Amino acid sequence: MKRIVFALTGVALLAGAVATTAPLSGQPHGEAAPIYGITIPAGYRDWHLISVRQLTGAGGKLKQLRAQLGNDIAITAFREGKLPFPDGAIIAALHWNKVASDADNQVLASGFPGAGLESSFAGPAVNVQFMVKDSKKYAASGGWGYADFTNGKPGNEALHKTCFACHQPAKDRDYVFTHYAATP
Amino acid sequence: MKRIVFALTGVALLAGAVATTAPLSGQPHGEAAPIYGITIPAGYRDWHLISVRQLTGAGGKLKQLRAQLGNDIAITAFREGKLPFPDGAIIAALHWNKVASDADNQVLASGFPGAGLESSFAGPAVNVQFMVKDSKKYAASGGWGYADFTNGKPGNEALHKTCFACHQPAKDRDYVFTHYAATP
Repeated sequence: MKRIVFALTGVALLAGAVATTAPLSGQPHGEAAPIYGITIPAGYRDWHLISVRQLTGAGGKLKQLRAQLGNDIAITAFREGKLPFPDGAIIAALHWNKVASDADNQVLASGFPGAGLESSFAGPAVNVQFMVKDSKKYAASGGWGYADFTNGKPGNEALHKTCFACHQPAKDRDYVFTHYAATP
Repeated sequence: MKRIVFALTGVALLAGAVATTAPLSGQPHGEAAPIYGITIPAGYRDWHLISVRQLTGAGGKLKQLRAQLGNDIAITAFREGKLPFPDGAIIAALHWNKVASDADNQVLASGFPGAGLESSFAGPAVNVQFMVKDSKKYAASGGWGYADFTNGKPGNEALHKTCFACHQPAKDRDYVFTHYAATP
């Protein structure tokens, strides 16, 4: 989802943080994203973890923590290194504004004086993005459909037009930038 | 897991990054951690996402991305705001060294010139830690047992002696620092 993540980042830079009231089911409503016609998959919040990421920039104005989750088909493909991803694979990218807790950092300072430890964590939700594999339906975009939702509402067509082109640099990995994080 | 996470951080500061070869099952072997006798729960890598976190410090030498996962009992309790956590709840904290990809950042620079965007993601695994709720077995430590594993091997007794005391600041949240991240 990286490049579409970047595209959304552009929106985030303009819109700033967006707190969400979306239910835990991850299905705020059924409005479909433009071009690819993708709605928010029910229950995506419970999918397995692929990896985590941080995105910073805009002179310190942008500070996000992110998680990529996958449905069972996507996770199995990641683990087996199966490329291209099979039809039915869906990757979700959840983005939060990164926040810090003074209380947390005071605990760190008392536990490890002089170490200068700072902790930050996922704060208000910013947006969620999806890549949906359907080699026939989305044949014109590398077999993937793309969708971006902020507070449950899909981004506009201009945003979604950027997705496929942006994922081109990852063509040799079936347009997926994210790698499966090692198991500690 | 925050405070025990911090405790492990101390070890990480000394040991540096530790790449893992642990199998995806999350069960490198059955060696139990001291004091609490906890082994790595099979399949923890597939548990649901609670939240994500970043820890930095040591003059820039420590840069970690972290994820907290929970088993079904823990996740249900988080969602329902149920405190104390019921017996059987287990929280896993996965820690990775944060790494960056020049190729990723080149894509960002080309997509958003001037935004100064920088992306980083989970690199080599450092360690994994667990909180296991058993109000009777672990009555002396707030009902929680604690365990820390690096490359599948448990930390020593001195490390595990720090866990409960470190979690005291979160006593009003049943000794759990981590909050359930919002659903975008």
